[in-house]
Amino acid sequence: MEERENWTTISSDAHFADDHLSVVTERVRTPHRTDAHAWTIVRRKSAVVVAAMTAEGNFVLIQQERIPIRKAIWEMPAGQVDQLCDFGSFRDVALRELREETGYALAPNGETIFLGDFFSSPGFTDEREFLFLARPVQRVAQTHTYVDAEMILECREFSPAQITAMVADDTIRDANTLSMWARLIAKGIIQLPAR
Amino acid sequence: MEERENWTTISSDAHFADDHLSVVTERVRTPHRTDAHAWTIVRRKSAVVVAAMTAEGNFVLIQQERIPIRKAIWEMPAGQVDQLCDFGSFRDVALRELREETGYALAPNGETIFLGDFFSSPGFTDEREFLFLARPVQRVAQTHTYVDAEMILECREFSPAQITAMVADDTIRDANTLSMWARLIAKGIIQLPAR
Repeated sequence: MEERENWTTISSDAHFADDHLSVVTERVRTPHRTDAHAWTIVRRKSAVVVAAMTAEGNFVLIQQERIPIRKAIWEMPAGQVDQLCDFGSFRDVALRELREETGYALAPNGETIFLGDFFSSPGFTDEREFLFLARPVQRVAQTHTYVDAEMILECREFSPAQITAMVADDTIRDANTLSMWARLIAKGIIQLPAR
Repeated sequence: MEERENWTTISSDAHFADDHLSVVTERVRTPHRTDAHAWTIVRRKSAVVVAAMTAEGNFVLIQQERIPIRKAIWEMPAGQVDQLCDFGSFRDVALRELREETGYALAPNGETIFLGDFFSSPGFTDEREFLFLARPVQRVAQTHTYVDAEMILECREFSPAQITAMVADDTIRDANTLSMWARLIAKGIIQLPAR
């Protein structure tokens, strides 16, 4: 999709900011409308999401407690990227998050492939997720100490058929993992069995 | 995914609220950790997303200016749901949004199928999207006046093969459409050609 020019910010009114997010109301003139619109926007750091594929073709998922939704859900590993990072270091952040959250790392002959990005909710936030495929990955730590702020309960490998069943039955229900799954299929990286 | 019990909210500190969102910092004890965690949460209304399929098997997408990301992107129709709605009325909201955003409506013999939900970014917001398939849909208005707050530039039908190419090449890059696409494939509602 082309990135359109001529977005003009007329005013920006800050409401709240902490280490995690900021809230502003901006008046913006868009490329295709003459009147300016006022819009409340939540600014967040970008994030990386990792599809970690083993030599056998399985994917590593974590089950994580998520306070905003008061649920524990199965997801692909992910983490936020420092604003100051250049894009070249996003790959390193992706592999570091993988290691910290799962105890898996890229095998010596492994590759990391960028699969594009997505926006989690472009009606209200600029949060942007960058998708990486890492393959093959292998377990490098039998047990590892999760970072304190992470609330990871479990880590397991799932086959593409298992993940497809989990997508179908609403077990997988976060935008990161669903968007990654759509991208992996559309790019032909995983093939689903014919029905 | 099971919804776990024993989420205890110890304190809640409001920072900002307007008609669109609110920001709070809460201290929460989760089911699996003894220490409480402080977390900043953005509360939003839930939303509906509509996969609108024509009798020919195409899907109706809109190209929309999105101020938070300063881009115009192709997406499936979607809209927010009033907090007070019961779930039975979500289907009506989905069809109303479809009509308003595209000029399409469910055909007289049509059906609306609930495809589950997803969370757009459960690390920071409780925003939850409910997915509906409407089929077949048909154009009921040649031209229609978009609601003022909507910033829709174009509305077109795309085949599943076209959408798959748009998912693969990063043209489709919003969580709503990508998550819906993953669900439609996993449920066998659309089949992709073998490669």
